[in-house]
Amino acid sequence: MKPMGPIPPFFAGEEGMLLIGGCGAASLVEEAGDTPLFVYDMGIVEGQARAFRDAMPAALSLHYAVKANPHALLLERMAKLVDGFDVASGGELARALEAGMDAAHISFAGPGKRDDELIVAIDSGATINLESEGEARRAIALAERRGRTPKLAVRVNPDFDLKGSGMRMGGGAKPFGVDAERAAALARRVIEAGGEWRGWHIFAGSQALGAQALIETQAATVDLAARLSEAVGAAPPLVNLGGGFGIPYFPGDERLDIRPIGDALGGMLDRRADILQDSAFAMELGRWLVGEAGVYLTRIVDVKKSQGETFVVVDGGLHHQLAASGNFGTVVRRNYPIAVANRFGEASAEDAVTVVGCLCTPIDRLGDKVALPPVEEGDLVAIFLAGAYGASASPAAFLGHPAPRELLIG
Amino acid sequence: MKPMGPIPPFFAGEEGMLLIGGCGAASLVEEAGDTPLFVYDMGIVEGQARAFRDAMPAALSLHYAVKANPHALLLERMAKLVDGFDVASGGELARALEAGMDAAHISFAGPGKRDDELIVAIDSGATINLESEGEARRAIALAERRGRTPKLAVRVNPDFDLKGSGMRMGGGAKPFGVDAERAAALARRVIEAGGEWRGWHIFAGSQALGAQALIETQAATVDLAARLSEAVGAAPPLVNLGGGFGIPYFPGDERLDIRPIGDALGGMLDRRADILQDSAFAMELGRWLVGEAGVYLTRIVDVKKSQGETFVVVDGGLHHQLAASGNFGTVVRRNYPIAVANRFGEASAEDAVTVVGCLCTPIDRLGDKVALPPVEEGDLVAIFLAGAYGASASPAAFLGHPAPRELLIG
Repeated sequence: MKPMGPIPPFFAGEEGMLLIGGCGAASLVEEAGDTPLFVYDMGIVEGQARAFRDAMPAALSLHYAVKANPHALLLERMAKLVDGFDVASGGELARALEAGMDAAHISFAGPGKRDDELIVAIDSGATINLESEGEARRAIALAERRGRTPKLAVRVNPDFDLKGSGMRMGGGAKPFGVDAERAAALARRVIEAGGEWRGWHIFAGSQALGAQALIETQAATVDLAARLSEAVGAAPPLVNLGGGFGIPYFPGDERLDIRPIGDALGGMLDRRADILQDSAFAMELGRWLVGEAGVYLTRIVDVKKSQGETFVVVDGGLHHQLAASGNFGTVVRRNYPIAVANRFGEASAEDAVTVVGCLCTPIDRLGDKVALPPVEEGDLVAIFLAGAYGASASPAAFLGHPAPRELLIG
Repeated sequence: MKPMGPIPPFFAGEEGMLLIGGCGAASLVEEAGDTPLFVYDMGIVEGQARAFRDAMPAALSLHYAVKANPHALLLERMAKLVDGFDVASGGELARALEAGMDAAHISFAGPGKRDDELIVAIDSGATINLESEGEARRAIALAERRGRTPKLAVRVNPDFDLKGSGMRMGGGAKPFGVDAERAAALARRVIEAGGEWRGWHIFAGSQALGAQALIETQAATVDLAARLSEAVGAAPPLVNLGGGFGIPYFPGDERLDIRPIGDALGGMLDRRADILQDSAFAMELGRWLVGEAGVYLTRIVDVKKSQGETFVVVDGGLHHQLAASGNFGTVVRRNYPIAVANRFGEASAEDAVTVVGCLCTPIDRLGDKVALPPVEEGDLVAIFLAGAYGASASPAAFLGHPAPRELLIG
């Protein structure tokens, strides 16, 4: 048997059926029409947002990183729940606007923005987080040709990283932002060129579960923002502190307690440098807001034995949940939390089983030697932590299966 | 500097421009309308098919594994070029039929076939490669209800593997097929139930570059097919020997010479057991037929420095070419062959550069510290070996960028 990650604390069973947002998993499948199905419980998302507001300083804005889950109905609800959206492409920008988010509260980061994407951002009034001097030059020239004042923030590649983060985005050579020592010069160039300088975007890493590392990173970020602003000689309207809050996916991971982070950040903001006195502050979170709210439900098509090992074959797979298969940004495959939705809480069978997707490839593995109750064809398998980087971050066309269904509840 | 895999021998430059099927890369982009663009050169595919026919015994049929590249125009050409299609889903089956392949020459493998997929296969007259006893039971019951005789082959999980293969699909506990010791019993059950038993599907592995390992595996496969057939007491109409022919992706990889494999297989088939005298034989190849024929063309959006390292940012990325980023079935990221299409053959710059995609994530890396000529914004980067498991096997929706264009030439 191999361990699996912890099931998020929001889920329980009733008469052996997994409840999502108070609804039985089987009836949700019926409502959606079929498996495979992603269910997103907006109640959990709202709870996370509430926890953020409760823990963090009142002055700190909450932005949603659309890349985590761009499902249209979710974005509509998000637009009312958070203070701003961060987007990573022209396509995401269009979706953000469609969802009703005011362009004044949208910022656009990403290292390879094409001219056509910059134009949409300039025309809509969204803020462009500049990733390089070259991008600044293009954005300023395009805005000038269109007779617009571009809103430009400078994304900084910080000279520190977020320790313990799943994805390091600072500390060393990086394709994101400009190195800290060139950031002030770029901001000055923006101002001199007549652009509306919107401030700093400093993103040191994501998916961290250690509060102390996050506190240290935020302290370094606020400090860097102050130093850079002094070098510019102007107050930044907004300091985007990035994200970094992680969620537990794997065995041994523990839920992050954000309250000490909020307390520490409150102190830092109280003591902040004069030049930042009138600045607004924001964090952008994606995975932490929506990741735990999603459950991927897929039906058992076959239960088979090979060389003494039991394989549970489901009608979903890595084409919908690539990350759970271990083929998306991970080196060693580990088990996401997984359960049999219609046998929730039942005792495990004596022997562990391996849950594989329906794709005809050995990499389509969703649960490796996991302890599950005895199962049969037709049972529903639930894979948790499917709210972020699931449906939109998987190779849906691979092997020609239908797209997954998505259902927003709560 | 880190090495990259070898550029396939089919490509040359003319006046500094990469030619694909005799056409300049830049004019192909113009024809397609924009980057990012996959170009598939049918001339290379036809050359591979010809090489197969030349090297392999005349009696050996050539099947195409649609999963490698299901582009509609390619499938239409393939339907005329090869003797059969192997599909892995109901969706692929529908595409194969649309492309004009006769259902009599289509076989359908895959461990998680749903009832609705089995029904389409039964109704169309395609052969179902049975993956388990449970699937056989379902297929037979569904066919009976529809008053049809199902065409059923038995997929065998062989008791050996293909040494040196990129993907092992035999030898040990596997979700594919039934273990060799249960295969004959399953074939007998098919025959007793009134199904049309179509023979064996024995697939031991894929993406191997060692001729000797492939020869040994094919010998073991023919031998296993004979033993199983004797245990059934019936001659299999078809023995599908699987695939396995690899293409060189990475530094140190060498092109596979299939002639000794053909010679050896010819000898094996000449000496084959009596029970296989009237059997047809086939190989199913995907990657080997189409992989080298594809080039992914993407345009440089930005060239930037960070901490002394040069990053070349292109408008494509892992959302179109996941495998080249090292996030699809690989443990250690290595460089695919890569070139600057409009500076083809020019001397490398002194310093290596890192080519990253446009996605706002550190895993979107297409070339790590590669030697390229000095580049600037607007240049075209070519990533080779994009004909298989590229466009259809990547998370196209991730971060909301447009789908890649695809162009079939030759």
